[in-house]
Amino acid sequence: MIDQRLLPAEYKLVDFHDYLQVTQAIQQMVVRGAPAIGASGAFGLALAAQTSRAVDKNALLQELRAAAEVIKSARPTAVNLTWGLKRVMEVAEQERGDLESLRTAVLAEAQRIADEDVEINQRMARYGAALISDGDTIIHHCNTGSLAAVDWGTALGVIRMAHKLGKRVHVLVDETRPRLQGARLTAWELEQYQIPYEIITDNAAGYFLRSGGVQKVFFGGDRMAANGDVANKIGTYMLALAANDNQIPAYCVVPTSTIDLSLPHGDLIPIEERDPDEVLGLQFAGYPVAPENAKARNPAFDVTPHRLISGIVTENGVVEPPYESNLRAAVEMSSKK
Amino acid sequence: MIDQRLLPAEYKLVDFHDYLQVTQAIQQMVVRGAPAIGASGAFGLALAAQTSRAVDKNALLQELRAAAEVIKSARPTAVNLTWGLKRVMEVAEQERGDLESLRTAVLAEAQRIADEDVEINQRMARYGAALISDGDTIIHHCNTGSLAAVDWGTALGVIRMAHKLGKRVHVLVDETRPRLQGARLTAWELEQYQIPYEIITDNAAGYFLRSGGVQKVFFGGDRMAANGDVANKIGTYMLALAANDNQIPAYCVVPTSTIDLSLPHGDLIPIEERDPDEVLGLQFAGYPVAPENAKARNPAFDVTPHRLISGIVTENGVVEPPYESNLRAAVEMSSKK
Repeated sequence: MIDQRLLPAEYKLVDFHDYLQVTQAIQQMVVRGAPAIGASGAFGLALAAQTSRAVDKNALLQELRAAAEVIKSARPTAVNLTWGLKRVMEVAEQERGDLESLRTAVLAEAQRIADEDVEINQRMARYGAALISDGDTIIHHCNTGSLAAVDWGTALGVIRMAHKLGKRVHVLVDETRPRLQGARLTAWELEQYQIPYEIITDNAAGYFLRSGGVQKVFFGGDRMAANGDVANKIGTYMLALAANDNQIPAYCVVPTSTIDLSLPHGDLIPIEERDPDEVLGLQFAGYPVAPENAKARNPAFDVTPHRLISGIVTENGVVEPPYESNLRAAVEMSSKK
Repeated sequence: MIDQRLLPAEYKLVDFHDYLQVTQAIQQMVVRGAPAIGASGAFGLALAAQTSRAVDKNALLQELRAAAEVIKSARPTAVNLTWGLKRVMEVAEQERGDLESLRTAVLAEAQRIADEDVEINQRMARYGAALISDGDTIIHHCNTGSLAAVDWGTALGVIRMAHKLGKRVHVLVDETRPRLQGARLTAWELEQYQIPYEIITDNAAGYFLRSGGVQKVFFGGDRMAANGDVANKIGTYMLALAANDNQIPAYCVVPTSTIDLSLPHGDLIPIEERDPDEVLGLQFAGYPVAPENAKARNPAFDVTPHRLISGIVTENGVVEPPYESNLRAAVEMSSKK
């Protein structure tokens, strides 16, 4: 994995040798982004299968079930982690061969998830790019590019595809406090793609939306409920509100693996609250930011109600309201394949 | 002045010996906050009068007029700076005595502005405190306390008064990017007043407003148009939108000196764009935040439309809609004194 905590200062690849290391990497956000942690979880299980000393298939299957629970606990909000683990475990439970066949099947399914992710991302990107006009200025929240997926990306993948197709785009990059994935990761990716951008504080999005210089807003999602409500990086809700207040379209880009039809609405999505040090551990002009014993609250996600979303870009097309029926159809289209 | 750039790490008082130093201090935000820069500008003129080598009254008057223009240019958005300078210059222009009388009159008017500011702040605070119920959790943006005024403060002054009157309050402190006045200054002040608080990222305000744990939102203002639209620290607009979307009252606390009746609506207020380094010059976990050559945009204020404001707390009472007539009445009440 790329250690995303060090970017853009340092590009460092890290290897893992067991699934507990992978779990920790997900928890500590060495890797982040809903599709990326889905594939990472799947490969975590593959590692568990490879490193296991189980002597028969049933013992390995039991180890894998336990490992899946441990990996799942790393981050509660994004459903892709659960989804990736579930896909691998379904293959494992159905495997009829011997111990070695099970090991092979688990690794193969993890690899399939990764390969499909790239293909799904590029399909989403093509659907989404059609929503972008030549000359658009776009506000983008958090990081949803290659780093957030196996490759290519979701919302940033759409912008990248529009650029690749020859449309001129300009990106206002929400810095995305507290972990600054926009300033650190999205800006770094846009430099690679040579897409022009400027970083703004999350606070400034409303100003730019109100002053008429922005045509579209794009963001990803970590878990979408059946009605289109979506949990995404903290701040997305206020961004979508400001877009809505100025009649600027706001699009959510998610693979169907991010859609959790078991939840009727977004208030049922568990929201992870992370270490207050992510808020307080900042230096500004060389000085610590907050008083020494300051406390902080740090919810990592918020829920954007579906009424604020202009369209949901999936690998099966752009889903429009009414979301409940149309999202279900989009999810079923993928599960039939 | 307290050098507010160093807080909370260091409490340092700085002296100034001419009005150019004061201008620079305002520009570089050694001092900030609408009422504080109003009084600072007035004292800047007093310094210009004291240090002038003019040999007759008319020469001094001309110097003062020029100095007022220079000081005014330091920051364009907050109207209090213009207002403070105008008050002093009116006294200067009307002074019928000699050179020394002029010097004395200018200093006396600056001192009067400072003294009145404290008294006005405490009157606002009493009116505003009546809006707060025992047990309220309040979101507060930027810093609007003692540091932002001569003493006591505007929006934070309201919270401080409620606390002093025995109401239990809990403050969620918006950290307020880019300059982090919330995390640095408001948290520091709340520590002094022993008011319980937690720092949140600006992005998290929407989450807390939506989850039902917040009863009120309070913020200050840098310039309010005749219709109640208000320019305040960047991010206020999105905060007010999120309060509005959840039927949480959002109050703006401004002395009538912040109300600019010459502007019919808020889109006419000049918005200062500051150095991109305020956005980019951040270290996170010891690493620089953005790629080396990253660009940024940095508007320092946004305009919150009056429709999102539940009430405007002034030293002449809480102004409710229709704002146009009621704000005019509030301003006239002060100018008659």
